[in-house]
Amino acid sequence: MDIPAVVISRLPLYVQALEAMVQRGEHVVSSQRLGEELGVTPAQIRKDLSYFGRFGRQGRGYNVAELLQALRRILGLDRQWLMALVGVGRLGRAIVAYEGFAPQGFRIVHAFDVDPKIIGQRVNSLVVKDVAVLEEALAQEPVDIGIVAVPPEAAQAVIDRLVGAGVRAILNYAPIAARVPAWVQVRRIDPVLALQTMTYYLKQGRE
Amino acid sequence: MDIPAVVISRLPLYVQALEAMVQRGEHVVSSQRLGEELGVTPAQIRKDLSYFGRFGRQGRGYNVAELLQALRRILGLDRQWLMALVGVGRLGRAIVAYEGFAPQGFRIVHAFDVDPKIIGQRVNSLVVKDVAVLEEALAQEPVDIGIVAVPPEAAQAVIDRLVGAGVRAILNYAPIAARVPAWVQVRRIDPVLALQTMTYYLKQGRE
Repeated sequence: MDIPAVVISRLPLYVQALEAMVQRGEHVVSSQRLGEELGVTPAQIRKDLSYFGRFGRQGRGYNVAELLQALRRILGLDRQWLMALVGVGRLGRAIVAYEGFAPQGFRIVHAFDVDPKIIGQRVNSLVVKDVAVLEEALAQEPVDIGIVAVPPEAAQAVIDRLVGAGVRAILNYAPIAARVPAWVQVRRIDPVLALQTMTYYLKQGRE
Repeated sequence: MDIPAVVISRLPLYVQALEAMVQRGEHVVSSQRLGEELGVTPAQIRKDLSYFGRFGRQGRGYNVAELLQALRRILGLDRQWLMALVGVGRLGRAIVAYEGFAPQGFRIVHAFDVDPKIIGQRVNSLVVKDVAVLEEALAQEPVDIGIVAVPPEAAQAVIDRLVGAGVRAILNYAPIAARVPAWVQVRRIDPVLALQTMTYYLKQGRE
């Protein structure tokens, strides 16, 4: 079944909202309520979920825990995903130290850099490897996801090598629009794009 | 005129695509072509743009430079926006060093931290100030946007103080869902959310 990418991209937001409800001790939620929380219409929520089967009972709303578990399974969040980081500068170190990955099943198992001063350093529990051995290291211990935190001019070459080494998902922190084959997913962490969606509203207030 | 937030959130992507076209020396683009570039239907593009007036001529496509300039003006990207960073740890330093802000008109003019060892340090051209003087510093030199790069347990309090000091837009790097008044915009930089939209596809390949 070919599910629209935009539907898939919304599901993690559903997961976040449902996790917050579990924490608040809420057991049942209507599509109305879930829609309000997420800024989409109840009809959109019902349509999105209909791709994956039948959830909730007519007029009874959704069981929060059941829906959460089902969505986590659908998204593949019920298992561990291994990641390789390339680029262990300031940003790379902040990424290694980020506490949000582990609770959600994402684990960095390789860190690579090109700088002889950084190679061999211990960063949290990782020892930084020479990026020259990237293919070798990934052949020995494969990963699912590559995280790219290198300067923009080096990013495309690093992405090509990760893809060549079998990585099928890239989290790209470099400010470039990466080119990848169709079977590879890329998401870009782009603070400027986020800022540019706010200035419209700031402008309204100023004028 | 009340324009749907989802339309506003797409416009920076249009700007990025149009900037790439300018760089490639392309002068005219059809809604078909622009839609392909962005993964939305041509009808959606025409509808999105119709909120802001008349662009392009029937059957002639859009003038790339004109459309880009108009969208930049609409989004408020034709001026400079001042920002205050709170949290000058590894992530904060990476943010200060990020080269993508300045070319798009975003400038960090204050950096605050709570750590006596960090306060007073020079980071690029900024001297880190004590977060205790945040309100005072922002009264003297106001900013439009606050960037929050503090640990999760400190984030909400920092956001409350920024909002109290008149900041109306928050770029939040902390892994929390911030609570803000209705007149304040928040965008969260969330690598986990980005990862969670890729695992669905990774899972397909594995099974």
